[in-house]
Amino acid sequence: MQLIIGNKNYSSWSMRPWVLLKAFGIAFEERKLRFDFTPGSSFYQALAVYTPTAKVPVLVEDDGFAVWDTLAITEHIADRHPELPIWPRDARQRSRARSLCAEMHAGFATLRNLCPMNVEAALPDVGAKHMAESRQLHADLARIDAMWGEALKQSGGPFLFGEFSAADAFYAPVALRVRTYALPLSENSRAYVERLIAAPGVREWIADALAEQDFLDFEEPYRRGRG
Amino acid sequence: MQLIIGNKNYSSWSMRPWVLLKAFGIAFEERKLRFDFTPGSSFYQALAVYTPTAKVPVLVEDDGFAVWDTLAITEHIADRHPELPIWPRDARQRSRARSLCAEMHAGFATLRNLCPMNVEAALPDVGAKHMAESRQLHADLARIDAMWGEALKQSGGPFLFGEFSAADAFYAPVALRVRTYALPLSENSRAYVERLIAAPGVREWIADALAEQDFLDFEEPYRRGRG
Repeated sequence: MQLIIGNKNYSSWSMRPWVLLKAFGIAFEERKLRFDFTPGSSFYQALAVYTPTAKVPVLVEDDGFAVWDTLAITEHIADRHPELPIWPRDARQRSRARSLCAEMHAGFATLRNLCPMNVEAALPDVGAKHMAESRQLHADLARIDAMWGEALKQSGGPFLFGEFSAADAFYAPVALRVRTYALPLSENSRAYVERLIAAPGVREWIADALAEQDFLDFEEPYRRGRG
Repeated sequence: MQLIIGNKNYSSWSMRPWVLLKAFGIAFEERKLRFDFTPGSSFYQALAVYTPTAKVPVLVEDDGFAVWDTLAITEHIADRHPELPIWPRDARQRSRARSLCAEMHAGFATLRNLCPMNVEAALPDVGAKHMAESRQLHADLARIDAMWGEALKQSGGPFLFGEFSAADAFYAPVALRVRTYALPLSENSRAYVERLIAAPGVREWIADALAEQDFLDFEEPYRRGRG
């Protein structure tokens, strides 16, 4: 099984299934395609073999069968590994976890657009500027705060539904955005961010991202170089 | 079990789980909230009891447990009804069906924005105008054409994965958009649109939408009244 991903410093969608597989100790081969969004690039050529959407991540089984989109990949992994609690074991907690992941999947556009993932960067000034200017960013963060707070209260932690699950993998890139842009959250949520950043899989992804040393201009709305 | 939905003429996300439940003969109580997006409206007040996202649809179990977001609702229904082929029985077909649903869930922004669902309307001129002006609309339709074509070829039809499944429920609003705006598709896809529009659940939703007779200005970028 192969997981095709983009640059680890930038690709928040790639991060989710990668972290999930690592956290649950599921073996896979990583294939990293350097982001290059010019038409006809080798990035697009390599992806076109597996998926018509030309987006990472893609999970490719050994015989070439491809599953695309992070949510579908997550369900595929859960389907293939019923012995692992990819989703919470409790039916209602499972449905709630899926609600939170689906909300991430189609939502939080302002947070995603204003604060793109950039693992190695520290951009607290950019975060402060956006917080001063964007009411919707406040709303996105308030929702995340409330969502995390309720899940952690219900489960008792340390992760959203107790033990690490797909829901945590889905919010790991949010934790990194909070850190990069120094976004304000409640004390409870900040503690969860710290736990998430230290979790197996997440920690490895961050180390790999820092080792990339690959600065891509078109992914850098705020920096002029590596600092 | 209650499904909270919006106006049937306009609410494409509400349509998906409603059609799914009807198609599989799963009993539920429908609760329709008339769209009203002014702050503090009764629409928002009624939703706030169940979901922090203030969006329809929401599935509410008899004791008040709420599941929100169409994809999570679909998985919740599949979880609760393992005896029904909500997703295809074959593991790979199931993963593929989920890829297609996830692609709909987070994609096709141009089709959704330019051609909002409006069951009762016939707007071929609007469709022709958009087709003349928007390259991205062409790309969205080309992708849908290819996706449907491949799934129907693999399964042999009549629906995307053989028998009616969640994937068809997810694309039912697309079929209605194709009809309302007379959007061009291959002959194969047009035939699928016709089958989908005639399918149980879909047919009922359409009849209910036509019976609504409820014209909402803010959902009508193209019409000035009911005609």
